[in-house]
Amino acid sequence: MSDIYEDSLSRHKQLAGKLEISLKDTLDSAAKLNLYYTPGVAAVSSYIAKHPDAARDYTWKGNNVAIVSDGSAVLGLGNIGPLGALPVMEGKAMLFKQFANIDSVPIVLSSKSPDDIIATVTAIAPSFGGINLEDIKAPECFYVEEELKKRLGIPVFHDDQHGTAVVVLAGLINAAKVTDRNLKLSKVVIIGAGAAGSATAKLLYRYGITNIVVVDRTGVIHKSRDNLNSDKKYLAEITNPDEHIKSLDDSLIGADVVIGVSQPGMIKPTNVEAMADNPIIFAMANPEPEIMPDKARQAGAAVIATGRSDLPNQVNNALAFPGIFRGALDNKISNITDEHKLSTAKVIAGLVENPTAENIIPSVIDKRLVPAIASVIK
Amino acid sequence: MSDIYEDSLSRHKQLAGKLEISLKDTLDSAAKLNLYYTPGVAAVSSYIAKHPDAARDYTWKGNNVAIVSDGSAVLGLGNIGPLGALPVMEGKAMLFKQFANIDSVPIVLSSKSPDDIIATVTAIAPSFGGINLEDIKAPECFYVEEELKKRLGIPVFHDDQHGTAVVVLAGLINAAKVTDRNLKLSKVVIIGAGAAGSATAKLLYRYGITNIVVVDRTGVIHKSRDNLNSDKKYLAEITNPDEHIKSLDDSLIGADVVIGVSQPGMIKPTNVEAMADNPIIFAMANPEPEIMPDKARQAGAAVIATGRSDLPNQVNNALAFPGIFRGALDNKISNITDEHKLSTAKVIAGLVENPTAENIIPSVIDKRLVPAIASVIK
Repeated sequence: MSDIYEDSLSRHKQLAGKLEISLKDTLDSAAKLNLYYTPGVAAVSSYIAKHPDAARDYTWKGNNVAIVSDGSAVLGLGNIGPLGALPVMEGKAMLFKQFANIDSVPIVLSSKSPDDIIATVTAIAPSFGGINLEDIKAPECFYVEEELKKRLGIPVFHDDQHGTAVVVLAGLINAAKVTDRNLKLSKVVIIGAGAAGSATAKLLYRYGITNIVVVDRTGVIHKSRDNLNSDKKYLAEITNPDEHIKSLDDSLIGADVVIGVSQPGMIKPTNVEAMADNPIIFAMANPEPEIMPDKARQAGAAVIATGRSDLPNQVNNALAFPGIFRGALDNKISNITDEHKLSTAKVIAGLVENPTAENIIPSVIDKRLVPAIASVIK
Repeated sequence: MSDIYEDSLSRHKQLAGKLEISLKDTLDSAAKLNLYYTPGVAAVSSYIAKHPDAARDYTWKGNNVAIVSDGSAVLGLGNIGPLGALPVMEGKAMLFKQFANIDSVPIVLSSKSPDDIIATVTAIAPSFGGINLEDIKAPECFYVEEELKKRLGIPVFHDDQHGTAVVVLAGLINAAKVTDRNLKLSKVVIIGAGAAGSATAKLLYRYGITNIVVVDRTGVIHKSRDNLNSDKKYLAEITNPDEHIKSLDDSLIGADVVIGVSQPGMIKPTNVEAMADNPIIFAMANPEPEIMPDKARQAGAAVIATGRSDLPNQVNNALAFPGIFRGALDNKISNITDEHKLSTAKVIAGLVENPTAENIIPSVIDKRLVPAIASVIK
């Protein structure tokens, strides 16, 4: 891995970042200045002032998404701040443009206070057709997204939550086929109750899976546990139906699926052995999974997915968000709903025609993804 | 003019705005995803987290300017709001890119409260290498700029103030040559004490002109007048040295220069006749000047400038700001000073080799402008 890191550093410095602004026409004559700037632009400004919805059509707003981060939960690096987050957000903007022809602008913030983030995004929102929240830590991310969804008339989507949840569900749909299971009747254990774990639990519940157990740093989440924040209180309501499971090891006994969004080493081979026959393991800690695929396989795992691009079945948010935003912008959707997320997961799963243990998730560069997803965001 | 307005409207709709994001490299393989996104980008993020100044070199921050407006004073249109302002800010971004190869992003704001604007720009500032404030009305613009200059370590420049002031001074330097005057000993009347008028008065004073009179809607600004805001109190200190001039008509008697940044009709032919011999008239109200050039010429004006692109001697901010930001970004200047503005005015004036009454200001598409100005912003 050291080579890729050195290559990446030198390449970023050589290019001085990955994005630039381009003009849809050159500005090389007085006539074009008159057309695009003064005096001509006054007609466009006056028209939009009278017809605010026209801003989507007469400016780049309608195809422009803000990628907003406070740098509090960046990749596996944690709270490295806005400047450290900036190259990740530029990378995200590359994905938006390359895969979905969406313009997007990294906006990294000097404040980590949820109320400041909400106020800032509300203030800049007229400039954009959508807001992609990124790498904002839990539980703050839940409140920030919820408030912004209430305040803004444009789609707001926290990718670390919903992008992950959608792609996990897509992968599980195919993993269930491969292992000949009814997914809705399966027992699913989720290790990690941050942004990704929490959103995954909620989406799987909305999909119809009723036997879910969520484990955080303190242990299994259940209704009688103390010190649950409001998000975890809700998780306690919808998970652990038997109310008797109190430890990670216990929870995995007989489980059909385990989804790790936590740390290396959290899933032991003995845990896999204790699961149901042909268990499904999504070990998505980055860069080192909760259990390495070869160890999981030796312990009996039937289908294994990770977050890594160098291993089969990569759970990658980039499968979902470009198409979701493409559809939301094209169809002028102001709110991305649970129904949209469920439909997206089914579309992604459906693009794998004959799922096998090593092929449950399409490639992120599959050109069918964006149009197929965009068509269901309506 | 109606044709240009219709053309502009249809062209903006056809293009759906004037800007887009481009990628400095395509993202068309798994190898490039690994390099520009995960896992490679983690090395860049970690490096910047340890060396924050490196963000300028490893991301687009170092060449990226936010164009910030609340839409409270857009062109001659006034307070048309953020959406109405957006096409103007996109036009500005075109000028930045075309003339100075600077990337810039329009950020139009839903709040007009100065403290909200300051908080928002402070919050998003890590994303950018500079802040261009635009079309924010006076007197709020003075406080907003002053506070942001204190808080941010990157250049903050309110173009409506300083861009105008710099280009007016450049034009006056050459107009004084054409009329064989000592500019510093000239009497200058400024009609209008908004962003442009106030900044022009201050810059001309800093240049060394001591006999300046500023007139606002209420009349001449002088020390004993009531109801002066803090900006106008300062103007009262540095202008109207004789303290006896109380009316616009009086102020123009014997004046060498009149600068209008106000409204059509504010300069009458009899005012021009009452001025000193061979007077200099900058009538910059848009789109209709304070006095039309033919009327001013008939009344004895020796040199006439306006804000219009279809008349000689266009005072256009676009002469100044691209080069000023190019120099500030290249030379890592965190504060654009009065000295920088004075130097820029002299550079612009110097590019007109043999000034004449109809040629005191270079063309905005003169390719010598940006490198010449950038070289003095150091």
